[in-house]
Amino acid sequence: MTTKTLGELAQYVGGRVLGDANIKIRSAATLGRAGEGDISFLSNDKYEKQLLTTKASAVIVGKETVAAGAVPLLVAEDPYYAFMQIMVLLHGHRKHKKIGISPRAIISDSAKVGAGCQIHDFVTISDGAKIGDGCVIYPCTFIGENVQVGNDCILYPNVVIYEGCKIGSRVIINSNATIGEDGFGFATHNGAHHKIPQIGSVVIEDDVEIGACCGIERGTLNDTIIGQGSKLGDLIAIGHGTKVGPHCLLVAQVGIAGSTTLGHHCILGGQAGLVGHITIGNCVAIGAQAGVINNVSDGKVILGAPAIDASQGKRAYGMIQYLPEMKQSIRELQAQMKQLLSGGENEPSPEDSKNSG
Amino acid sequence: MTTKTLGELAQYVGGRVLGDANIKIRSAATLGRAGEGDISFLSNDKYEKQLLTTKASAVIVGKETVAAGAVPLLVAEDPYYAFMQIMVLLHGHRKHKKIGISPRAIISDSAKVGAGCQIHDFVTISDGAKIGDGCVIYPCTFIGENVQVGNDCILYPNVVIYEGCKIGSRVIINSNATIGEDGFGFATHNGAHHKIPQIGSVVIEDDVEIGACCGIERGTLNDTIIGQGSKLGDLIAIGHGTKVGPHCLLVAQVGIAGSTTLGHHCILGGQAGLVGHITIGNCVAIGAQAGVINNVSDGKVILGAPAIDASQGKRAYGMIQYLPEMKQSIRELQAQMKQLLSGGENEPSPEDSKNSG
Amino acid sequence: MTTKTLGELAQYVGGRVLGDANIKIRSAATLGRAGEGDISFLSNDKYEKQLLTTKASAVIVGKETVAAGAVPLLVAEDPYYAFMQIMVLLHGHRKHKKIGISPRAIISDSAKVGAGCQIHDFVTISDGAKIGDGCVIYPCTFIGENVQVGNDCILYPNVVIYEGCKIGSRVIINSNATIGEDGFGFATHNGAHHKIPQIGSVVIEDDVEIGACCGIERGTLNDTIIGQGSKLGDLIAIGHGTKVGPHCLLVAQVGIAGSTTLGHHCILGGQAGLVGHITIGNCVAIGAQAGVINNVSDGKVILGAPAIDASQGKRAYGMIQYLPEMKQSIRELQAQMKQLLSGGENEPSPEDSKNSG
Repeated sequence: MTTKTLGELAQYVGGRVLGDANIKIRSAATLGRAGEGDISFLSNDKYEKQLLTTKASAVIVGKETVAAGAVPLLVAEDPYYAFMQIMVLLHGHRKHKKIGISPRAIISDSAKVGAGCQIHDFVTISDGAKIGDGCVIYPCTFIGENVQVGNDCILYPNVVIYEGCKIGSRVIINSNATIGEDGFGFATHNGAHHKIPQIGSVVIEDDVEIGACCGIERGTLNDTIIGQGSKLGDLIAIGHGTKVGPHCLLVAQVGIAGSTTLGHHCILGGQAGLVGHITIGNCVAIGAQAGVINNVSDGKVILGAPAIDASQGKRAYGMIQYLPEMKQSIRELQAQMKQLLSGGENEPSPEDSKNSG
Repeated sequence: MTTKTLGELAQYVGGRVLGDANIKIRSAATLGRAGEGDISFLSNDKYEKQLLTTKASAVIVGKETVAAGAVPLLVAEDPYYAFMQIMVLLHGHRKHKKIGISPRAIISDSAKVGAGCQIHDFVTISDGAKIGDGCVIYPCTFIGENVQVGNDCILYPNVVIYEGCKIGSRVIINSNATIGEDGFGFATHNGAHHKIPQIGSVVIEDDVEIGACCGIERGTLNDTIIGQGSKLGDLIAIGHGTKVGPHCLLVAQVGIAGSTTLGHHCILGGQAGLVGHITIGNCVAIGAQAGVINNVSDGKVILGAPAIDASQGKRAYGMIQYLPEMKQSIRELQAQMKQLLSGGENEPSPEDSKNSG
Repeated sequence: MTTKTLGELAQYVGGRVLGDANIKIRSAATLGRAGEGDISFLSNDKYEKQLLTTKASAVIVGKETVAAGAVPLLVAEDPYYAFMQIMVLLHGHRKHKKIGISPRAIISDSAKVGAGCQIHDFVTISDGAKIGDGCVIYPCTFIGENVQVGNDCILYPNVVIYEGCKIGSRVIINSNATIGEDGFGFATHNGAHHKIPQIGSVVIEDDVEIGACCGIERGTLNDTIIGQGSKLGDLIAIGHGTKVGPHCLLVAQVGIAGSTTLGHHCILGGQAGLVGHITIGNCVAIGAQAGVINNVSDGKVILGAPAIDASQGKRAYGMIQYLPEMKQSIRELQAQMKQLLSGGENEPSPEDSKNSG
């Protein structure tokens, strides 16, 4: 752990200090839990009042108008990004012990392992696999035949990568994730399901992170692709031949069926499900638990199952609770209408009225 | 397997026998499948008729009014709890082979392993980790640096616990579960997602059971907590910094996003999803597949996506199927109304009528 | 990789050629990506136009009317099945290296391993387990006590099978799947959840495939059964005592609670959830994300949460988006009705009219 002054932090993130720049910062904490030596940050204006009571030594904010004087402030253009920079500066990312190549790892003679790798006990690296420089491979992880892994990747314990998959550089794969298992492809004939060889592979581009217990199927004919810089949460299922564009965020438990294509910078909420063979544009945001069954064009924000435009969807799905009273209203209207109409029939017509006049 | 008389069982669970107390019981089975020597139980009054046909040697019931005479009954105040007690008495919980500490487990010199532990082959216990007494750790399980595990825990094969997590006593973690992977925390800046160091940890309190293939993220700043006595089913995803209170039941495939807090004795149905940063009270029941996007107060029963009070929700969601006919009814009403109103315009007004009179 | 002429392929699948039967086929590809030497197939009439532009050397089709002349065609009665047969002929299924039994696998003296098995490093085969002939067990897979595995099974890395489970022949289990963990069964008494011993097991019948990261619970009293020829995608959770009939297809992330029974040839879409203790008939199709809470009879097609008949369900759920305007229409009708009715009260009755006449 490093200690920095608030002034040093401000300089580091390109922000400026309102208050005592010499105050010492050792760590970070939420507004409610921060104590002396902690920097906190205001993520949401609704917590602004906490600035008056926080015990943090300083708070990162986006604009100086808030609570100046109550606590030293670090004003940054993008406060969450500044928070990230400071977290990295003070704490760094996870350190990986330098253990070199364990004699209890099984590495094929035909596999290549780059310089500076840490290969732990009980790892298997199969024939023809190629691991770049600076990779860390934790115990019981399995690298299949002819798998390619770039530089500076981290594979946590019990990751499995089936044969022939290609992993970029600086990729992180969390524990118990499976990459490249066969796609769910069967030809049903006379009532039996016949397995179709899945000759596609999985390509995970640079700077991707894959969560724990994910399953990313290999493609039937084409590769399944996770685009550069995309981040997948835990327990996500990606179908065969699906392409996730670069810089997407997929929250935990998302499921995408096969042969679907996502553009860049899409955000998928937790438990969202996408059917196969559809195309999602760029910068699309899909709500948690959404069920997406059609193509979606660039920039759309959708939610619900079936998913519809968020501008109407939030209200529409929120209205399901009023269905009983809506149905009751319709029934009342129908009764009233019936009475009116039957009343009309019994009622003398204007002609009658005239005649009777 | 042990054999007991029905009378012994009744004494053990604090119940009483209606019928032959000397009948011998060796095992338990469902009403439909039980045979001689089996005790069964009536879990639901709708199966009461099965008491007349079951081949069970005895049946645990909650009240004596049912089918007395057809089959010997063990009347217990809480029949399901009595069933549990009898199952434990007759069958016991899983026995774990006494294998001591395998020479093929890799245990750091700086790790501590308590008395009476069974540490299987291919286990990794990293630097500074501390395992209590009487723990069973199955093959290929990974214990990260400085992890603390209490007494009498069972970690099934291929469990992964990342560094620094704290596991209580009598905790059971099933296979392929991952504890303490990084929270899904990224600061997006100029279109790229930058990983935020996750300096929180995971705390799993005493008597918790975690299902297979679960993923429990470590917190960004605060710890993720699974409260004492809570039980999690399989394939559950818990977000960073989320706190599950004591004695909760989370059914399989539940997902809870980050920084959400649950009270005690909550029950979450399968596939339910909770957004982040909300507070769920005590004794809340949440239906299967529910989508919870707001705080929920103590004792509420909610269901649906979006989740609403069950008292109205069951009816409201069940009414979606009537939407087409409701829409049709509205259309008809509108047509009738239009006719009425236009008829009204064409119809002579009462004044006209008077005038015409 | 094998090369065949189009005529040879047609003969192999029992189809016939329209065009040059001597053209050489080496592999398969989608219509849009195929090149010289590739055979493609028309899976859906909506892609029929691609037959005119594809660079494939041949295309498998179901009927000859399509685009004859543009590209050589292989006409087959069941084109997807023919595609599967050709994929197997040209590429074969995954080859497994002949490594015999690794000295780094730990096999109990009381376990039996059949002829021609490939048992990889770091595998554990526990006391009393019995593995049939020709099985492949990849690294770090765990076989519990008294587990039975049939012939020609493939267990990918890091699979865990708890004690006593029975696996048929030609079963494939993908990585990080867990079979036979305890069912989610607790008796709640005085606010604490007491674990019920789960004395049932899991039976996986012949020709089943289980996806990555699945969790299949053992039964409390009865066995959990996955029927012959059924195929499960990734990240599926099957509850205790549930019976999946033969030849079912369960897409990724499906969840089925305990004691539910499925017939044969059911198809469950991704993320579908079924409550416990219900019975699903034969040949039932359940839509993605459906929530099934009641018994379903043979041949039904259902969708939505709660699930309803697809014939009305697709329209009904698609109509949620119109709820705001429906509510608005009802409000307008109510206002108009109120006006009409109040107008009626103020309006002289026909009698008045007569009187005034």
